[in-house]
Amino acid sequence: MTAPVRIALDAMGTDHAPRPEVAGVLEALLELPDIEVTLVGPRDVIEAEFAHHGGVPGRVTIHEAADRVTAADPPASVIRRKPDSSLVVGLNLQREGTVDAFVSAGSTGAIMATSLFTLKRLPGVDRPTVGTIIPTVREPCLLLDAGANVDSKPQHLVQFAHLGSIYAQDMMGRTQPRVALLNIGEEPGKGDELTAAAYGLLADQAGLNFIGNIEGRDIIGGICDVVVCDGFVGNVLLKFYESVASFIVELLRKTVGSVTALRVLDYAEIGGAQLLGVGGVSVICHGESTPKAIRNAIKVAERAVRSHMVEHSAVELSKLSEEAP
Amino acid sequence: MTAPVRIALDAMGTDHAPRPEVAGVLEALLELPDIEVTLVGPRDVIEAEFAHHGGVPGRVTIHEAADRVTAADPPASVIRRKPDSSLVVGLNLQREGTVDAFVSAGSTGAIMATSLFTLKRLPGVDRPTVGTIIPTVREPCLLLDAGANVDSKPQHLVQFAHLGSIYAQDMMGRTQPRVALLNIGEEPGKGDELTAAAYGLLADQAGLNFIGNIEGRDIIGGICDVVVCDGFVGNVLLKFYESVASFIVELLRKTVGSVTALRVLDYAEIGGAQLLGVGGVSVICHGESTPKAIRNAIKVAERAVRSHMVEHSAVELSKLSEEAP
Repeated sequence: MTAPVRIALDAMGTDHAPRPEVAGVLEALLELPDIEVTLVGPRDVIEAEFAHHGGVPGRVTIHEAADRVTAADPPASVIRRKPDSSLVVGLNLQREGTVDAFVSAGSTGAIMATSLFTLKRLPGVDRPTVGTIIPTVREPCLLLDAGANVDSKPQHLVQFAHLGSIYAQDMMGRTQPRVALLNIGEEPGKGDELTAAAYGLLADQAGLNFIGNIEGRDIIGGICDVVVCDGFVGNVLLKFYESVASFIVELLRKTVGSVTALRVLDYAEIGGAQLLGVGGVSVICHGESTPKAIRNAIKVAERAVRSHMVEHSAVELSKLSEEAP
Repeated sequence: MTAPVRIALDAMGTDHAPRPEVAGVLEALLELPDIEVTLVGPRDVIEAEFAHHGGVPGRVTIHEAADRVTAADPPASVIRRKPDSSLVVGLNLQREGTVDAFVSAGSTGAIMATSLFTLKRLPGVDRPTVGTIIPTVREPCLLLDAGANVDSKPQHLVQFAHLGSIYAQDMMGRTQPRVALLNIGEEPGKGDELTAAAYGLLADQAGLNFIGNIEGRDIIGGICDVVVCDGFVGNVLLKFYESVASFIVELLRKTVGSVTALRVLDYAEIGGAQLLGVGGVSVICHGESTPKAIRNAIKVAERAVRSHMVEHSAVELSKLSEEAP
């Protein structure tokens, strides 16, 4: 008998909060018998929403947080200006050990900044990163950085590579994950200043199955488990992929009447993205998350806790920091 | 009665040269009554290929060039080490005024380096650039730089913007082309160091219809005529787009049996990419070009000459160089 995983969910994250959050929790509880969820937000609002579903279930607790972070709040100021927000209160519950993980569909920048302040960076990590799991013609792969970090230095890409490799092992079940550097040529030394320098560092890493450069055309082929890049190109590529996928699904719906063939490109399946490189579990969802996406994000949080991937990351990345000159 | 446009075609560019080149010329001659083509390469090989089609047609000349550039030749060394190659000889025909334009499906790097040496940069241009026309849900748009230039500086993006705007006017028939900066946020000042700085410069440009930042998700919507970016992100994005398009067309062929709905994503339609910012017309094709692609590249070259877009570029870009501090 293992202890249940305790997950705090920001009840006021999505654009239609707390409706998708409450519905998502109910879905997650059905699927995951060994979790307990603490919804963080205004108690009356949350209770009113649960009332539509027959009341607050047994494995759910509500933790009062009167204030709410909005898109207008500068991310770095949230911790100081909105201490009673569901975001800050929820992350504090994790810091003090009341819960094991935190999930929010609020402003990405605010979640990142507040997670960093509350959970701290792991030793050896300069910049925490966010990856996105993308569909390919074979297995999905993790692309990181997905947009959190621009103007990366070569050593940042190395840290992303390690964090991504551990994520692929612990969260995606990959053994010796194949890690590739996104570049504009296949040969070592190709690319811009960043990727040419990063290649050399990556090739020298112990504990990393680095398979070399891949080009934009190789991503969809699913030839690796982790794709490493700066957040600028990662963000452009992910948003482009998402829009192309939506466009094609729409086009097919109109012309063919069926989209089953393109299931591989259906982004609705994807839930939250975990902030990697901090001393805890913080999962970030889209602001327009559906109940299904919230449920998936809760599943990500549960798996992250059960797999001890944060502890795993701390061990691996601290080696990096000891090796550094 | 206008004078015919005289186009030199590197007969030895494609992987299966000179077969696609000869077939492409024959297609182009049928469609374009006012061109003359000079095929540059080993006379006997070219004549043997024309023999399969009933001989060398009236508007075709063969210009002897015994040597051939291969992928193994370092681009910068071609001009010195292979002066008798079809690439160098063909570009020299343009420099000395024997032809008006040059088309090749040889190594992109070699074509660029040799074009730059032979045709020279236009005043105000630090780095010549190559754009690619990509399909969107509305009209196609021009994305540049497509991979020729990495580690761009803000002023290079400004030059790309002007060269792209002129291309969109003269070659794509757009009036006051909408030029956008590819970025990871919409607001001015968003992005990495490069795009944040480039935004300010672009917003100040006279003679440019700059509409601001666009994100990866906006490209497919076709909301602008020209997308400006560094060649690293441009190259990754274009190769990714091409692979996704191929994948989907293949998937549909298998499942639906028809691909008419996805005509918009069919890359086979696209011919050559023109090198922008040099003092002449140099059109670069894929090494695996089909006769249709060669024909389209010849059409690009003809239109570039007829529209006087090089002269137009020289006038606009020289203003830039005079304004610079």
